[in-house]
Amino acid sequence: MVAAPSISYSITVRLEIASGGTAVSELTTTVERAGGVVTALDVSPSGDNKLRFDLTCATSGTEHADRVVAALEALEDVDVSKVSDRTFLMHLGGVIETRAKHPLRNRDDLSMIYTPGVARISQAIVADREDARRLTIKRNSVAVVSDGSAVLGLGNIGPYAALPVMEGKSALFKSFADIDAWPICLDTQDTDQIVETVAAIAPGFAGINLEDISAPRCFEIEARLRERLDIPVFHDDQHGTAIVVLAALRNALRVVDKRIEDVRLVMAGAGAAGTAIIRLLVEAGLSDVVVCDVGGVVHAGRGDTDESLQWIATNTNRSGLTGALKDVLPGADVFVGVSAPNLIDADDVAAMADGAVVFALANPDPEIDPVVARRHATVVATGRSDHPNQINNVLAFPGIFRGLLDAQSHGIEPSMLLAAAVAIAETVADDELSANYIVPSVFHPDVHMRVAAAVRDAARR
Amino acid sequence: MVAAPSISYSITVRLEIASGGTAVSELTTTVERAGGVVTALDVSPSGDNKLRFDLTCATSGTEHADRVVAALEALEDVDVSKVSDRTFLMHLGGVIETRAKHPLRNRDDLSMIYTPGVARISQAIVADREDARRLTIKRNSVAVVSDGSAVLGLGNIGPYAALPVMEGKSALFKSFADIDAWPICLDTQDTDQIVETVAAIAPGFAGINLEDISAPRCFEIEARLRERLDIPVFHDDQHGTAIVVLAALRNALRVVDKRIEDVRLVMAGAGAAGTAIIRLLVEAGLSDVVVCDVGGVVHAGRGDTDESLQWIATNTNRSGLTGALKDVLPGADVFVGVSAPNLIDADDVAAMADGAVVFALANPDPEIDPVVARRHATVVATGRSDHPNQINNVLAFPGIFRGLLDAQSHGIEPSMLLAAAVAIAETVADDELSANYIVPSVFHPDVHMRVAAAVRDAARR
Repeated sequence: MVAAPSISYSITVRLEIASGGTAVSELTTTVERAGGVVTALDVSPSGDNKLRFDLTCATSGTEHADRVVAALEALEDVDVSKVSDRTFLMHLGGVIETRAKHPLRNRDDLSMIYTPGVARISQAIVADREDARRLTIKRNSVAVVSDGSAVLGLGNIGPYAALPVMEGKSALFKSFADIDAWPICLDTQDTDQIVETVAAIAPGFAGINLEDISAPRCFEIEARLRERLDIPVFHDDQHGTAIVVLAALRNALRVVDKRIEDVRLVMAGAGAAGTAIIRLLVEAGLSDVVVCDVGGVVHAGRGDTDESLQWIATNTNRSGLTGALKDVLPGADVFVGVSAPNLIDADDVAAMADGAVVFALANPDPEIDPVVARRHATVVATGRSDHPNQINNVLAFPGIFRGLLDAQSHGIEPSMLLAAAVAIAETVADDELSANYIVPSVFHPDVHMRVAAAVRDAARR
Repeated sequence: MVAAPSISYSITVRLEIASGGTAVSELTTTVERAGGVVTALDVSPSGDNKLRFDLTCATSGTEHADRVVAALEALEDVDVSKVSDRTFLMHLGGVIETRAKHPLRNRDDLSMIYTPGVARISQAIVADREDARRLTIKRNSVAVVSDGSAVLGLGNIGPYAALPVMEGKSALFKSFADIDAWPICLDTQDTDQIVETVAAIAPGFAGINLEDISAPRCFEIEARLRERLDIPVFHDDQHGTAIVVLAALRNALRVVDKRIEDVRLVMAGAGAAGTAIIRLLVEAGLSDVVVCDVGGVVHAGRGDTDESLQWIATNTNRSGLTGALKDVLPGADVFVGVSAPNLIDADDVAAMADGAVVFALANPDPEIDPVVARRHATVVATGRSDHPNQINNVLAFPGIFRGLLDAQSHGIEPSMLLAAAVAIAETVADDELSANYIVPSVFHPDVHMRVAAAVRDAARR
């Protein structure tokens, strides 16, 4: 796939041109000839018969942006004075901040917000600890915790480089579900130390969102924290992905008119996301499933010692298949990949059952080019925003935590994950559903509040 | 001292009265006869020829508030339907929240704030870790960390009850210095665990404000974290208090025309605040100082094993005095108390040198009633907001952290604390200075930015 110009590589170029010159008319065509897409052009006079242009254009990457700027610099009478990268400008100083809810104008305000008045709030909480959920930020606060060990497609980049991602996530929590999330990036990748640290900071939060922690440590960290804390602990890379996959699969099977109980599903990838997806799909009724990892089909005979691989070997592959991914894909109804780029080809998809469903979720490069997959599969989904049917965690986590917080839930159960998946799926009405529209947009006006309501009700039951 | 009606015990009483009845005119007089102070009266019609009143009044405490409500209920034809406590209303759901800096309206916004655009920000930080101070919230974020072991005058109330105090403090950070502070309340009081936890969460913050951690653990925690982290670590109960005491003392000595190098100072209290005050005053030139704790005068012969008492024994009491507080106070120029209520009386102050300065800072009840102290002392200061010369940490911490963050300081040195004290003191102009005005109000329009500038300049040197 050739990268298209994208807003996330958008630049703003400030340039000056003689107002009577010919260069003005050449600006946009120059950008377009260099492959950029002009999205804004702000003009202001600049003295000396000159005009100042702030030209904003989308490019397909850093090197392409350099080429666009070079093309502009090559124009006669054009003076390029400054190039700003819109994404970098947005992240200057971070994308979230705090806000004091009440003005602090005078002594009266001070004595209620802080001392001496605040002592009475503290005393109320001493008398009844549950009052902390009423009288403090705990009610609406979530910690977004990462050790930076498995960030996006970037790998183990550590806590400092993970910080902008956790901030972005916190901004989404606020924008989509009015949740106060704060990033906590950990300077340790030791399982025990992560568990101890998160447990130690838990009192001020009503939920913990674990993020971008590599497998298999993420399983143990989540399990131990769930055991120990009285607030929900949710590893988004696992459960967020699983929920959206289940929602998408529900609707894809409606399109091809099959039941989850009847299909054979082949999965590539047995990491954090893959394991969580399988567990949730099995919970939802899937029974015929075969999982492959880098060593081929997972089966009991492989003698894996990893706890989650053992669970997969015991609970999947009921026909006891062995071999490679390509050996077990023929005849399958559904392929779900959370693994690596370009693992399968057109012939593999052609060999699947009629009405094949292909979820190629490796990011940014899927297991198969979705355009190629669509030649033989009825429904195709990816993790990419530039194709239909994007499987995007953002559909799940804001509403899930909103529901958990509203229910003041002390934990999180599979029933809540299932309820969230159903809510996402049902946001697509019967008459809207099609092979190219199986999940709603993350900007769908209702999706987050529907998920929240479903999770809240499930949590209260 | 009898408690006066205070806004921090302000209540709003909703009541209904027949609009033609006589009770209306009796409302405010009833509140006043019961000792309350009416601060607002909002009236609206309520059907059936009735009026609804929202009557807001200050009371002197919870029991007093109950008496005021009872007096209103006793009025004929008055129907009290709801009593709201303004301080509790303000703290419902906490006093701070997060804010997303940019609107999230569409796919373009999403792809710059979050994936895929944010990956480029992460990659920039992988290339140069210092970019985290430019491209993330780290630039402006401070963790307000407490284990709840020594909160206000309330003692060891734990992390949940400490949370509203840390929130209030975070609101002050924002309102006075535009700093994004987030409360971190710890579910441990173990020194090692606190050090490990704070070190683990440090990457996302540019400063650590330790708060309300009891002595002597606070000394070790601060020292070990300073050793380990590349961001400033500041225990406000120690250094914030010390800075404001030094600022106030500077100006008090201007009032009585003495030099810090010449005075004899007697101090009651050798806890966290007391020790920090002594260290900073010695740094500022004080040489003749005697410290007392519950065991009397601290001197080398006592054989204290506590590290900070040993430091005091070595660095103070140059005349080798022994005995009790009352034995060493006669003839002293300055008394500073950070200890317990009613330790000294009028005779003790009368026995001090001419132009005596008394800082009775125990809270809420000082070492001596300031009204009594003022009979014999020239300058009297307390920690109370209802007397002149309040020694209030709020004068220091917002500006100090603003200066540290602006300088991107990796640590904090005594020179910066001294600079902050001088900046606070010099905010009181020569022609403003008097025995009843030695420190500016925390609402002084310039004080926080003056402190910030002084600390920033000191940090850059």
